[in-house]
Amino acid sequence: MATRDVTAKKTLAKIEALAKGVVQEVKKRKNPRLVVPLRTLSNVQFNAKKKIIELGADKQERAFFNVAQAKKFMQTFLVASACKELLEVGKTTSIRDLYYMTKHTLGDTRQNTFDEQDESDPIIEDLEVTVDALREELHLFANRKGLMVGPMTVIDSGDTIDLRRQGSGGWGVPSIVEPNVIRFGKTEAKYVLLVEKEAVWSRFNEDKYWKKEQCMLIHGGGQPPRGVRRLVQRMHSELKLPVYVLVDNDPWGFYIYSVIKQGSINLAYESMRMAVPGARFVGISSFDPERYRLPDETAIRMDDGDHKRIKQMLEYPWFEKKQWRRELEAMASNNKKYEIEALSRRGISFITEEYLPKKLRDRDFLE
Amino acid sequence: MATRDVTAKKTLAKIEALAKGVVQEVKKRKNPRLVVPLRTLSNVQFNAKKKIIELGADKQERAFFNVAQAKKFMQTFLVASACKELLEVGKTTSIRDLYYMTKHTLGDTRQNTFDEQDESDPIIEDLEVTVDALREELHLFANRKGLMVGPMTVIDSGDTIDLRRQGSGGWGVPSIVEPNVIRFGKTEAKYVLLVEKEAVWSRFNEDKYWKKEQCMLIHGGGQPPRGVRRLVQRMHSELKLPVYVLVDNDPWGFYIYSVIKQGSINLAYESMRMAVPGARFVGISSFDPERYRLPDETAIRMDDGDHKRIKQMLEYPWFEKKQWRRELEAMASNNKKYEIEALSRRGISFITEEYLPKKLRDRDFLE
Repeated sequence: MATRDVTAKKTLAKIEALAKGVVQEVKKRKNPRLVVPLRTLSNVQFNAKKKIIELGADKQERAFFNVAQAKKFMQTFLVASACKELLEVGKTTSIRDLYYMTKHTLGDTRQNTFDEQDESDPIIEDLEVTVDALREELHLFANRKGLMVGPMTVIDSGDTIDLRRQGSGGWGVPSIVEPNVIRFGKTEAKYVLLVEKEAVWSRFNEDKYWKKEQCMLIHGGGQPPRGVRRLVQRMHSELKLPVYVLVDNDPWGFYIYSVIKQGSINLAYESMRMAVPGARFVGISSFDPERYRLPDETAIRMDDGDHKRIKQMLEYPWFEKKQWRRELEAMASNNKKYEIEALSRRGISFITEEYLPKKLRDRDFLE
Repeated sequence: MATRDVTAKKTLAKIEALAKGVVQEVKKRKNPRLVVPLRTLSNVQFNAKKKIIELGADKQERAFFNVAQAKKFMQTFLVASACKELLEVGKTTSIRDLYYMTKHTLGDTRQNTFDEQDESDPIIEDLEVTVDALREELHLFANRKGLMVGPMTVIDSGDTIDLRRQGSGGWGVPSIVEPNVIRFGKTEAKYVLLVEKEAVWSRFNEDKYWKKEQCMLIHGGGQPPRGVRRLVQRMHSELKLPVYVLVDNDPWGFYIYSVIKQGSINLAYESMRMAVPGARFVGISSFDPERYRLPDETAIRMDDGDHKRIKQMLEYPWFEKKQWRRELEAMASNNKKYEIEALSRRGISFITEEYLPKKLRDRDFLE
């Protein structure tokens, strides 16, 4: 990632514009201020047409000459300045590193710029919405998980990697997968299969499902990290590949699917570039245990947290569709949840040889 | 992994021998029994000569005609039978899958063979020690984490993978890295650098430290999973590469180093094939913050749990050496701990350009 790259230049220009605005206010002897879009639940809507969760138009001001706002004002510029340095030298770093880079004790006081990382993380999110640049464009990365294999060549930071020849290991999906880092090369893929769990991914990889089916096989180790979500979104929008999601039959699995599909409330401002409204749910459906004859001892009893979560989810506008109500209500009334691995009770490779092929053949998925 | 492979044949023979022994006892109208090496703390010793934690000679019997032992007897054979099936079809599976594969309700009772996975996991460990085969040789895998890059070609399940060209992503280290799955090809590596954290690994990878220094760069996402430990052990023993470990300056970081070096108490029976007694600790040392001028605000105050852990660790025979006492006692008396990322306060690439090169040049490491 060289400084010379176009994305970095654009982001640098955005940060500089922010700083120049403040400098001009100072020169005019005005109280310098930042206008930051509000990232609160009240400023989040579900856009029924685009089918994604979006940030509304509410904004808040942060003035320098305001006792309550001065610290956050200063913190925002500290983070912006560190990102500027990263962009200029063409390096990326973790949000943990950024916290240490920007942590100082102020003068002779015992005041720190930041006391904990949970103070610097929201400032990063503020900066993202204020200058309209994803965290990745600010050259920051979060922890990552996730592996991908399949009929595709990717160019990662100049290295050509053949995802058809990754053995049992797989290519680790980076945290930053923007087009200036990851480019898609030749591919024969017909769709993307995103599975919730690494162990399930390994079953599909060992059985070479992706080769027989010509699909990209990716997992995100539970709730997929940003890199995995963004990469799936890029394959969907740039390569026009359908996306199928395979998760546990429990409220958490359904929620993972929902975040992939329409984004999350927390990061609503990024839905445009992270959500895949066309993503399809291939299971485990609440009706699968009966349909695929899973013995009762493979079920897990639901707890109070599960039931509470289902109630919450039934109130989300994006779960309003009849088929989702049926799923969630069946799960609640059965009082049972099932992991993907429960299918192993029907045979080691039942999932790759019977379950999923039948689901796709019958177009038995939910949207 | 084909059934035909030699390792699988050997493991199959071990399982069959176990079963035949029992059948013979039955034919002789004797009470069939299993002899299982004891995996308790009392049966674990530190072998000062080999410098690894080892299992002692104590064993326990599990008889079929014994109310207290019959269930475990049966469970052991259920697991053995599932592993036999895996070996015969040349597939591997997760320990979670194995739990579902072997979970049944017995006849018309409400008794299950296993109620939770924490019942089947210890049975796997019992089987490992009883037939003297690593879990990986039984074709079982655990969750995995960890990535590797560096000047080496590996052959993974028949695919040739150039770890010199893995971009920002890296090759995901599989859970099973036995020689029948992973073979080492051409390499120019001079040593192995194992870092505790993924974010730190990304810093070293982005700075192409492994290229300048000609080293294998690997991380295990905290306490390294079995695959990472075994792979490092294989590179050390088969390729004669020195191993350097970079962890946080806290009891947990030191413990990670200790597990890599001499194995763990829990899995003492595997130390021979997992531990790297020659592993060297390159930091963060309790004396580094002063030596490398880390400002005080980058320190984290220790909590009661940390102090308690240090006391425990001072009693381990493998921390008896003077240099380790100094490290642990300094940490306790400073009442401060430091993350690797604290070095970022000295500059984005301080760790790759100054800290580690100096440590290695000065041979400033602990053993």
